[in-house]
Amino acid sequence: MGKGSNLRTLGDFNQAVVLDAIRRSPHGRSRVELGELTGLTQQTMSNIARKLLQAELVLETGKVAQARGKPRTLLEVNPDGHYAIGVHVDPANLNFVLVDLAGHVRADRRLPTPSNHTPAGIVNLIKVTCDALITEAGIDQGRLLGLGVAAPGPIDIESGVLLDPPQLPSWHNVGLRSELREATGLHVLLDKDATAAATGELWASSERRRDFLFFYLGSGVAAGVVIGGEVIRGVSNNVGEVGEIIVDAEAEDLDYGRRGSLNTSCAPQGLVRQAVRHGLLDPPATETDYADLQQRFTRLCRLADEGNAEATAMLEASARRLGAGIALMINMLDLDLAVIGGPIWSLVRDRFLEVVPEGMKGWLVRPDAGVRVEGSIVGDRVAAHGAAALVLDHFLSAHPSVLLME
Amino acid sequence: MGKGSNLRTLGDFNQAVVLDAIRRSPHGRSRVELGELTGLTQQTMSNIARKLLQAELVLETGKVAQARGKPRTLLEVNPDGHYAIGVHVDPANLNFVLVDLAGHVRADRRLPTPSNHTPAGIVNLIKVTCDALITEAGIDQGRLLGLGVAAPGPIDIESGVLLDPPQLPSWHNVGLRSELREATGLHVLLDKDATAAATGELWASSERRRDFLFFYLGSGVAAGVVIGGEVIRGVSNNVGEVGEIIVDAEAEDLDYGRRGSLNTSCAPQGLVRQAVRHGLLDPPATETDYADLQQRFTRLCRLADEGNAEATAMLEASARRLGAGIALMINMLDLDLAVIGGPIWSLVRDRFLEVVPEGMKGWLVRPDAGVRVEGSIVGDRVAAHGAAALVLDHFLSAHPSVLLME
Repeated sequence: MGKGSNLRTLGDFNQAVVLDAIRRSPHGRSRVELGELTGLTQQTMSNIARKLLQAELVLETGKVAQARGKPRTLLEVNPDGHYAIGVHVDPANLNFVLVDLAGHVRADRRLPTPSNHTPAGIVNLIKVTCDALITEAGIDQGRLLGLGVAAPGPIDIESGVLLDPPQLPSWHNVGLRSELREATGLHVLLDKDATAAATGELWASSERRRDFLFFYLGSGVAAGVVIGGEVIRGVSNNVGEVGEIIVDAEAEDLDYGRRGSLNTSCAPQGLVRQAVRHGLLDPPATETDYADLQQRFTRLCRLADEGNAEATAMLEASARRLGAGIALMINMLDLDLAVIGGPIWSLVRDRFLEVVPEGMKGWLVRPDAGVRVEGSIVGDRVAAHGAAALVLDHFLSAHPSVLLME
Repeated sequence: MGKGSNLRTLGDFNQAVVLDAIRRSPHGRSRVELGELTGLTQQTMSNIARKLLQAELVLETGKVAQARGKPRTLLEVNPDGHYAIGVHVDPANLNFVLVDLAGHVRADRRLPTPSNHTPAGIVNLIKVTCDALITEAGIDQGRLLGLGVAAPGPIDIESGVLLDPPQLPSWHNVGLRSELREATGLHVLLDKDATAAATGELWASSERRRDFLFFYLGSGVAAGVVIGGEVIRGVSNNVGEVGEIIVDAEAEDLDYGRRGSLNTSCAPQGLVRQAVRHGLLDPPATETDYADLQQRFTRLCRLADEGNAEATAMLEASARRLGAGIALMINMLDLDLAVIGGPIWSLVRDRFLEVVPEGMKGWLVRPDAGVRVEGSIVGDRVAAHGAAALVLDHFLSAHPSVLLME
């Protein structure tokens, strides 16, 4: 049921709309410009600006001369107005960023996920690292809004629980959100890795980039979907499970996963398995040590970079298959931009940006629609950025997160 | 950029929200109930109710006794407040409905799409049929809001043009919207068939049914996506092209389309081709006469109903493959309901509702998530209903259609 708008709720909403507009304007905006952008009257704008200044969420940072009349004062977001920490728990790596309200990274960390870790060990490692980041950044802890956690799905968003992520085999029904709340004393949000990554990309994007597919390449593959500036979440916040899509019906059988699927074609586990079969890599001791798998995958990428023809062919086939998968999703959702990112993206970026569009040909229903493929503008840590952005959005956005905060 | 809400736009918006709430309440609502449902104050509600009564969009239809105080007057939508016609141009059939504001069908027609038709011939046929429907229904033409047209994609929504629908091979860049505007004198909206069908299903659905996948089975296959009570449209209104998705990597090669895809597995063209190969049907004279293909497909369904084992196996394989496709889309979008409908749905309904859920097994990433599969509550004409609903929504809804009206 659509809700009507009563007056009493408009104040906060409009304040959030204006803060959003200021956050997205790196060079500042005058009150007049903000009024035009948001459709608010100048009287309302002045009141909101005063409140935002009082709360130290924005700063007056300069004046712009006008052809006529007195110069206009610019409002910019106050970077030190608030902070958030984002951590991305990938089976191979833990990525941390401490960001300020302007989205700048004030401190960061990348750690390999310990082999044979326990959930309790990871919780402790996150707590210790958060403490170190806060100290290093030298921020006012009172302005730290909380900790956002991006983790492999499926998750139960109501209870803040990781259910049974296939790539964290020792994790079953781990109440990560409440355990981290208790360990760190911070407010904690939990979200799915690919959804957080799409959020991070959207947060860093300009106003023109409001509809796109985000393809996440990490220990697993998944997709995020952004429509009209909103990250689609699904009915249980588990959107984006695209690994079972078949992208090459003629692919070799790896005795693992679904033959020719995105999972087996594009995630390190499948590619390492292929490379081992072809004698390019030594077999790993275990197939569930994702930090080790990522090292082997890195070795495969290096072989290709050094000119090894078989490694090159393998990675190019992977990119073409990813192109097929992206095309199938673009066909379905009628998007014109696919953005690729995630923890292993920088290893394959140049090769994939060249080959993926080739792979899309023959699969796109409307090949003339001008679909673009771009790399993430945030980089490998995009899911950690997104997790931090979710925390800032939860407190500050005109479209508050549906996620529950402990 | 999010827009702030100024007061002057609130009146119309709130009026539309209230009308929506009344339309969705088949047994009427009191002003007090509507205030609670929409979050509006009783003062605002009374003003809006007066305006809606003046415009003859709602009626006072009775009183409900209260435990205390005086009985409350019920407001119901006035069926004769407005009308719209919807036509679904499927390559095999033309389906027409004339509906009133309550969504009741006041007149309807189903015609086979003439073989060797021209676009001009179809335009004329639509014009003549609209005239006949208006006369038959005996409605006040001044209250007919317009004609909605559901047609196979791809379409150019800006110009109201059918680009080059694969199943209407003689149609290239046909300006259907303006030609129909000229021929009928009615306001005309054009939308893609599967999107219109999803709209029709949503319109007929209760408040609980706000997120679902709509799978469209007609001369072609396609999907509609409904999220949070909104039909997803894509960046060019061509959402839902899912026919290239591979649902059986081991399927037989039909020398046509992509082997094992939804297109070749679930649309009449592929199934008739299979049946001809297996000697169950005579080969058609041409493969682009979709009315003829649909008759042959009907014959195949009848063979299965009569107990022919090969025909049964063929249709069951089709249903299992559709299940795989639905599961892949559910995985991606995290929905918990798939609704199937469209022009050929009633031919396969019982068999498919039994077998499709079976086919989903093994493809669902979260098999315990309780995904339901249901048949359309509207039926074979759901796209025509949706086309009419788009017209009513365009004029009356709180979330006006983005479609352009001639």
